[in-house]
Amino acid sequence: MIPRYTRPEMDAIWSQETKYKIWFEIEAHAATAMARLGIVPEEAAAIIWEKGKDAKFSPERIDEIEAVTKHDVIAFLTHLAELVGPEARFVHQGLTSSDILDTCFSVQLVRATDLLMEGMDRVLAALETRAKEHKFTPMVGRSHGIHAEPITFGLKLAGFHAEFQRAKKRLETAREEIAVCALSGAVGTFANVDPSVEEYVGEQLGLSPEPVSTQVIPRDRHAAYFAALGVIASSVERLATEIRHLQRTEVREAEEFFSKGQKGSSAMPHKRNPVLTENLTGLARLVRMAVVPAMENVALWHERDISHSSVERGIGPDSTIHLDFALHRLAGVVEKLVVYEDAMQKNLDHLGGLVNSQRVLLALTQAGVSREDAYVLVQRNAMKVWAEGGMLLDHLSADPEVTAALPREQLEPLFDIGYHTKHVDTVFKRVFGE
Amino acid sequence: MIPRYTRPEMDAIWSQETKYKIWFEIEAHAATAMARLGIVPEEAAAIIWEKGKDAKFSPERIDEIEAVTKHDVIAFLTHLAELVGPEARFVHQGLTSSDILDTCFSVQLVRATDLLMEGMDRVLAALETRAKEHKFTPMVGRSHGIHAEPITFGLKLAGFHAEFQRAKKRLETAREEIAVCALSGAVGTFANVDPSVEEYVGEQLGLSPEPVSTQVIPRDRHAAYFAALGVIASSVERLATEIRHLQRTEVREAEEFFSKGQKGSSAMPHKRNPVLTENLTGLARLVRMAVVPAMENVALWHERDISHSSVERGIGPDSTIHLDFALHRLAGVVEKLVVYEDAMQKNLDHLGGLVNSQRVLLALTQAGVSREDAYVLVQRNAMKVWAEGGMLLDHLSADPEVTAALPREQLEPLFDIGYHTKHVDTVFKRVFGE
Amino acid sequence: MIPRYTRPEMDAIWSQETKYKIWFEIEAHAATAMARLGIVPEEAAAIIWEKGKDAKFSPERIDEIEAVTKHDVIAFLTHLAELVGPEARFVHQGLTSSDILDTCFSVQLVRATDLLMEGMDRVLAALETRAKEHKFTPMVGRSHGIHAEPITFGLKLAGFHAEFQRAKKRLETAREEIAVCALSGAVGTFANVDPSVEEYVGEQLGLSPEPVSTQVIPRDRHAAYFAALGVIASSVERLATEIRHLQRTEVREAEEFFSKGQKGSSAMPHKRNPVLTENLTGLARLVRMAVVPAMENVALWHERDISHSSVERGIGPDSTIHLDFALHRLAGVVEKLVVYEDAMQKNLDHLGGLVNSQRVLLALTQAGVSREDAYVLVQRNAMKVWAEGGMLLDHLSADPEVTAALPREQLEPLFDIGYHTKHVDTVFKRVFGE
Amino acid sequence: MIPRYTRPEMDAIWSQETKYKIWFEIEAHAATAMARLGIVPEEAAAIIWEKGKDAKFSPERIDEIEAVTKHDVIAFLTHLAELVGPEARFVHQGLTSSDILDTCFSVQLVRATDLLMEGMDRVLAALETRAKEHKFTPMVGRSHGIHAEPITFGLKLAGFHAEFQRAKKRLETAREEIAVCALSGAVGTFANVDPSVEEYVGEQLGLSPEPVSTQVIPRDRHAAYFAALGVIASSVERLATEIRHLQRTEVREAEEFFSKGQKGSSAMPHKRNPVLTENLTGLARLVRMAVVPAMENVALWHERDISHSSVERGIGPDSTIHLDFALHRLAGVVEKLVVYEDAMQKNLDHLGGLVNSQRVLLALTQAGVSREDAYVLVQRNAMKVWAEGGMLLDHLSADPEVTAALPREQLEPLFDIGYHTKHVDTVFKRVFGE
Repeated sequence: MIPRYTRPEMDAIWSQETKYKIWFEIEAHAATAMARLGIVPEEAAAIIWEKGKDAKFSPERIDEIEAVTKHDVIAFLTHLAELVGPEARFVHQGLTSSDILDTCFSVQLVRATDLLMEGMDRVLAALETRAKEHKFTPMVGRSHGIHAEPITFGLKLAGFHAEFQRAKKRLETAREEIAVCALSGAVGTFANVDPSVEEYVGEQLGLSPEPVSTQVIPRDRHAAYFAALGVIASSVERLATEIRHLQRTEVREAEEFFSKGQKGSSAMPHKRNPVLTENLTGLARLVRMAVVPAMENVALWHERDISHSSVERGIGPDSTIHLDFALHRLAGVVEKLVVYEDAMQKNLDHLGGLVNSQRVLLALTQAGVSREDAYVLVQRNAMKVWAEGGMLLDHLSADPEVTAALPREQLEPLFDIGYHTKHVDTVFKRVFGE
Repeated sequence: MIPRYTRPEMDAIWSQETKYKIWFEIEAHAATAMARLGIVPEEAAAIIWEKGKDAKFSPERIDEIEAVTKHDVIAFLTHLAELVGPEARFVHQGLTSSDILDTCFSVQLVRATDLLMEGMDRVLAALETRAKEHKFTPMVGRSHGIHAEPITFGLKLAGFHAEFQRAKKRLETAREEIAVCALSGAVGTFANVDPSVEEYVGEQLGLSPEPVSTQVIPRDRHAAYFAALGVIASSVERLATEIRHLQRTEVREAEEFFSKGQKGSSAMPHKRNPVLTENLTGLARLVRMAVVPAMENVALWHERDISHSSVERGIGPDSTIHLDFALHRLAGVVEKLVVYEDAMQKNLDHLGGLVNSQRVLLALTQAGVSREDAYVLVQRNAMKVWAEGGMLLDHLSADPEVTAALPREQLEPLFDIGYHTKHVDTVFKRVFGE
Repeated sequence: MIPRYTRPEMDAIWSQETKYKIWFEIEAHAATAMARLGIVPEEAAAIIWEKGKDAKFSPERIDEIEAVTKHDVIAFLTHLAELVGPEARFVHQGLTSSDILDTCFSVQLVRATDLLMEGMDRVLAALETRAKEHKFTPMVGRSHGIHAEPITFGLKLAGFHAEFQRAKKRLETAREEIAVCALSGAVGTFANVDPSVEEYVGEQLGLSPEPVSTQVIPRDRHAAYFAALGVIASSVERLATEIRHLQRTEVREAEEFFSKGQKGSSAMPHKRNPVLTENLTGLARLVRMAVVPAMENVALWHERDISHSSVERGIGPDSTIHLDFALHRLAGVVEKLVVYEDAMQKNLDHLGGLVNSQRVLLALTQAGVSREDAYVLVQRNAMKVWAEGGMLLDHLSADPEVTAALPREQLEPLFDIGYHTKHVDTVFKRVFGE
Repeated sequence: MIPRYTRPEMDAIWSQETKYKIWFEIEAHAATAMARLGIVPEEAAAIIWEKGKDAKFSPERIDEIEAVTKHDVIAFLTHLAELVGPEARFVHQGLTSSDILDTCFSVQLVRATDLLMEGMDRVLAALETRAKEHKFTPMVGRSHGIHAEPITFGLKLAGFHAEFQRAKKRLETAREEIAVCALSGAVGTFANVDPSVEEYVGEQLGLSPEPVSTQVIPRDRHAAYFAALGVIASSVERLATEIRHLQRTEVREAEEFFSKGQKGSSAMPHKRNPVLTENLTGLARLVRMAVVPAMENVALWHERDISHSSVERGIGPDSTIHLDFALHRLAGVVEKLVVYEDAMQKNLDHLGGLVNSQRVLLALTQAGVSREDAYVLVQRNAMKVWAEGGMLLDHLSADPEVTAALPREQLEPLFDIGYHTKHVDTVFKRVFGE
């Protein structure tokens, strides 16, 4: 977790305090469920709740005990006993540490996901607003970094909106993957704890019981979760990369908002750099790097080993914290993006109408020229524009083999922008449903 | 693609022949749709279908043309024109290469996924059969590779069944991700092709239109697809690892079927090695290695670049082929797994009843001993078994602090297996619904 | 291995034929060494060489035998016996399959590396030629995609040359890592084979004996090897990315050679795309994806398991083949790169001299203005260029706070290019040593 | 960075305080060098050193300034000016932020590597001690987890020692990769800073000048560095995995030291788990996950972008901290490893002498039986041991086809351990040079 890429709301989910509070709640809910079954005295369960619910668990004290026991949950339980008194002996009956740890991790991941969803919604809202604002702002579409044909800036943003809709759906699926609890005992047999305890605790915490936990919740779930974050981070990277490209000096069709007092470079006072989107590109790599270790965590030995634990102590907080930060940073960039419509138009005009080459090609084939011949005719005039400059229309009009099929007056109308924007409405309906 | 890990059914999906056939179908369906719109003559569309549908496209001839054009789709179209004649000029009207390439890739991935689903079902069936066969075969559960408490072998397999049910669901989701087509032209504006063409072609091929394609179908879909395969491969690895462990000489509770004539080692004639499951462990790594490049493919520049293409030429076939092979190999291993029930029982008894330590702990707390004291009492007797051998029950019975709370006659019943298997039915119901 | 990204020289190294030939040589050299020790009759060793050295080993026949034995080396030895006759019983004395497999893999990797070295040298030569050609071709240096200060194109290429010198050194180190053989028997104890056999075979094949092989050569070596390829691929990606940027329509300072007859797009005849460098970007991802599985291969169980084998059947050929292809493709791109010096100059002038902002800043501090104040003075005039256009020099000259410290006649000399190129020689000496 | 896996020495290298101190030193050394060139007044350089060398840089104040400037180095320089006074205007003359950042990162990585080297040496020392202690402690060698032939525990550890010798060499190479500095100005042209400044600063800090820095030190160096850490982590994982296997209940040939008061499980008081080595397995994944993003960092745009920065803020500290912790934890495990020689012997005897099957095979071929026939003879008797138990020697002696070639008295000597340990000295000499 890198402090400068951390929002406090997400940080809080992963604090020691939060963790111990959740541990307590799991134990106390379990005690309640056991009291209903008559395994634990009703009063004991009540006292546990009463004394524990506002208790301040001391991470320092727990660390102190763990230094001896070398076991974190036992250290917590010992500390809990110090706070709750003799009734603490009814705590953790028939449970195993992983029941607590894994269920707690699920609670934290679910909360983290709900927070990620807010960032996701903010990104979606920003994209929708800006897409609609620029629905008909013409710009050049580029493939391979080379001018292709006209699009609109709104269309570009609509495409990202569709991608982030998918990202949101993936996040929802990921949430379902890990919204499970397990209180099934040492090897998942419920030998010492009734399945109804698991159901009760799950219900209180908004989690479903894991159908078969061994000692742990199987880690294919977490692998799927972190893989989903990795895919989402890759979409963040794509949008960030797009903006970095648009801000290049020679392109400069859009620019990150540059605030008053901001300095672009310690050496060169003229600089205005797309540092936020470059940063997002890096953050995407950070989020993505959790995917492989999460997958390596799946093949635990037999009913479990503890190799996944250190990995998750890292990637659990780090991936959610960095993605959360990235989503909000991205939303901010989109919301405040400075769009240079004039530059978009200028770049679109830059190549003397080359962007209409396909349309001329099709018109020639419609006029009876074979596809291969038409290609040659248009390509040779297009190459003149690349080499010498000038307007494609002029070059074509001066080529007798072209004008034999299409005289200049039939060529001219092939160069209007409306031809390219006629289906923007169709696409917007697909994306925004209206 | 490694020949020895390739099943011919999957290989066929990725052959040049299949690819060109699908390219043809996309072009021909598009021609039909355009004929309905009056853009292409009805007869031309009919002739295209007629002459093309049984044509043998020659990969060699296409390569020859590509050597000049340096463009594979143009090479194909030129070859198609050689086969179809002058009507070929109506083919590919308003389309761009990626319309064909990406839609074809979707068709191939969908077919590959359907084949993977068969392997998945075979694994599930094998796991269910063997799980039910060994529903009550007792064995020791192990955490950290150390004996923990008793389970049954059926329970272990049921857990894997539940995991592969999730794997199947992930595969279904992954299929949805990539079951999309795009025929939207050079930069996705439908400038030269009506959206109805895309809808028609999609319908014929069982694909939905991509809401916003740029020149390409966005690669977040493919990233999600390959990530899902990676998670599934990790589950394959977990089951393979389990079997490898069970076959260890000292454990030897189960063993891969060793066929007549098979040789385990060129040097040591006594060897019977879990080579299939070790191989599956390696195959899992191979499938998983596609995940990161698939994610790196997402951030294409602007409306697309072609960097993803070489990656997908590799991981498209390789990941699906290797996972397909792995699923069938895994199913075969499970179907024919030799299970040594006697060894399971022997290992369960190996530690002199240590596996019941928790139960004794809980009984002591129920008898009024504090959790901390009970832990100390049981641990010190358990450590005697580790150090000196003997039965835990005997050591406990000889410890006056223990017997003060629980005399031997109350200790004895704490050592029966039924206690641990009483909820096997519950778990089986969760997994198999019966 | 993807045929279109495969050069035949590298392909040959990984063919079945080559593999069996190397297997034979290892066995035959070992037999010779054993004959010297008197373990194998001298004549037997001679006959093995004689009958085997030109033998055509039949992959089909070997596959046939393997179908029964399920063991590839045993299948080969059986086939060898068919070709060599009764003396074949002296073959493989005291050896284990991995002795053959691992030593063969080393031979193949060494040969592959030597071939990679040729590609590397070709890249280095191309970079040197073009760097010297454009040693003083001015262009803008860009950080964050934004104009920074002037550089020369030769300087840019010199930087890549230095990087590929490091790449070459990494490849040499990687070669050393895997230039080892092992003939130490079933668990590396030399129980059944004298260490001198290993030494002799290694000498014949140009390999050092592995100090401690278990049954296998430890896989940390291979992990280091594939990691080195991954780093080199990343350098390929950086150069490819640079060229892609330079070819962008708005930048167009350099361009991949576009051959006669080439077609950039099936739809848009005007297109000239940097498809080779985009392809290299993808190939880099393919090479890099071997790194993690190679690392996952390290932790084999005890004296070895076979999980690494399937991984290496994939990544061994694939990574070397694809990197080999990439290096030659990259060299070709650099050799034939079309450089537009005019465009470089035009882009350099594009921002009205903004690229000299630092120099003005420094001159102001030298003239007694504090760094902070100087920054503000230059930044506010630079921002005018961004917003309104015009020349930085003119804006500065119109700013009385600037001219108070530096009048126009002192500002003017701050805008000459020689200032920026004065150390090009220094850098070239560092790189090319002259 | 996960606190529980952090040693304070390594943590200190990555603190804000250390970073600002190094920044200051770079700036101050540069000022000294510039004073020698007459660019900066001698007294100014002296005052900078004097006022800065014991200054307490305030991270809070710097954060406060950065909130406005959005640039960390400018914020630092501003704060430095507050501490140093007007002479601060001579600081950072002609430098760019990356000169400071990258050179500082090199200093930190070099220091971190030196600390890693200590951990490496501790691991090597522990392995050597224990290897020599158990040089002739016999145990079974295992391939595929299956008994193969006898080895000694010392031999096993010697193999790991050899691997960690390679690890150490890789770390040395990695150190060289990143022991470079750059003070070449905004785009690496030395336009505003003389190359001699870079040389001087490098000398003071123990770094070589980067031959061609653009604005940054090229990231292929860092990719190579983190890749080396990844390979080393994989070796840690292999040793950890070995110990986990040896501690399995059924094997139990070695065990992590279990301290007084330690608790293995919250539920099962009998548990003694290999938690340290499992933890090391997880830490290896954490270290390894930095490799891919470090490689993705290489292809920065043009003279640099800032996408690598956030990645390195994460992986720089995390990878070195976790590997440092892992090396010391691993050394501790090896130093205190409890070795059960009796269990080793017992397991070795477990299979009735099967581990000598190859030796019998070879003796039969020496006695004139063909390799194929000998294999069949030994295999069929070996399979009896697997199926029915008993001693291999007895089964062989009862097989007339065997005794026809080798009577029992010739079979018996094939079962002594000395045969397998005769080259232990050879191997130890290779590893320990004595």
